[in-house]
Amino acid sequence: MFFSSQLLEDAVREFSRLPGIGKKTALRLVLHLIRQEEGQVLQFSDVLARLRKEIRFCERCHNISDEQLCRICSNQLRKQKVICVVENLRDVIAIESTQQFSGIYHVLGGIISPLDGIGPEDLQIESLISRIQKEETEEVIFALNPTIQGDTTIYYIGKKLKPFPLKITTIARGVSFGGELEYADEMTLARSIMNRIPVENYINHA
Amino acid sequence: MFFSSQLLEDAVREFSRLPGIGKKTALRLVLHLIRQEEGQVLQFSDVLARLRKEIRFCERCHNISDEQLCRICSNQLRKQKVICVVENLRDVIAIESTQQFSGIYHVLGGIISPLDGIGPEDLQIESLISRIQKEETEEVIFALNPTIQGDTTIYYIGKKLKPFPLKITTIARGVSFGGELEYADEMTLARSIMNRIPVENYINHA
Repeated sequence: MFFSSQLLEDAVREFSRLPGIGKKTALRLVLHLIRQEEGQVLQFSDVLARLRKEIRFCERCHNISDEQLCRICSNQLRKQKVICVVENLRDVIAIESTQQFSGIYHVLGGIISPLDGIGPEDLQIESLISRIQKEETEEVIFALNPTIQGDTTIYYIGKKLKPFPLKITTIARGVSFGGELEYADEMTLARSIMNRIPVENYINHA
Repeated sequence: MFFSSQLLEDAVREFSRLPGIGKKTALRLVLHLIRQEEGQVLQFSDVLARLRKEIRFCERCHNISDEQLCRICSNQLRKQKVICVVENLRDVIAIESTQQFSGIYHVLGGIISPLDGIGPEDLQIESLISRIQKEETEEVIFALNPTIQGDTTIYYIGKKLKPFPLKITTIARGVSFGGELEYADEMTLARSIMNRIPVENYINHA
């Protein structure tokens, strides 16, 4: 691609480094920005610089945070003795948008996956255990992706948590709401039969 | 979407203002940037700020430029008496990447489109005419999209250029290379028959 301006070329290069953004999309974004008000573009630039310089991780749950403790951990209205264990920040956002969970989180920063070279020592597992000890946690809920790696991680951490007087649960796996049995894979269907729930519970929650 | 950090929320908001980027994609881009080296993100931020503050338009051809004259206009190796008239910057980039044009450009900034409220006075038509007068241009090539609006613009400017001793041409319209006649629309096929070219010319260019 030929550019008549170095600035334009630089901006397109920076945008096209982002995942999933090619040169043509980058050019479209840059041309859009050129047409915006100067104040708005400068604000974008400023937010980017601050993002990388000032962002921190919550000391307690390892979620992304502006302060020492994230907004969720420091919210005293949330149940501080119920910890939901998730793989990453995106899962926190997904669960928060259901508005069904009022406890706090623990972000592992990944799941155990030997094929990718990720072992237990690469994850925030030790800090989870010392948290549980210190905070007298009452329940740990695993909200990990229903994959082999997710299950391995649950099994590994679950064993480590045996000594503690805890309720340990995992989010339900089953047929998706709105899904069709016919198209559900065998694994999902098998588990949803194994872990069937009394209809009275189901109706109460619906 | 709930965010545990104001900085993260700000960054996602800024990215999701870009065309074609929703909240989920914005989050993915921001999380990607957080994992990058600080220097690289600061460079991105800097390029953005400079882009909007320093970018200019070439005084001669109205292309985007860093200087008073753009890289193409100030390149003395290019034929300064052949002007290619295009709608916008993207068309300049498209033509430049063919490496088949060695003249200079004139960016109209749009095409005549009464339905969108764009008339001749909104485009860089007057400046094109005064350029042609001053620069003793020998050929004007229209490279506008083959639409009704494009043809209207060619017709309008063409009439204005009648008094000048010029060769006035337009890029060929016809069946795309690699296309199939069967699927070409009638208008394209009709024009490609009307404007048929001697096979000897065709072979020389292939």
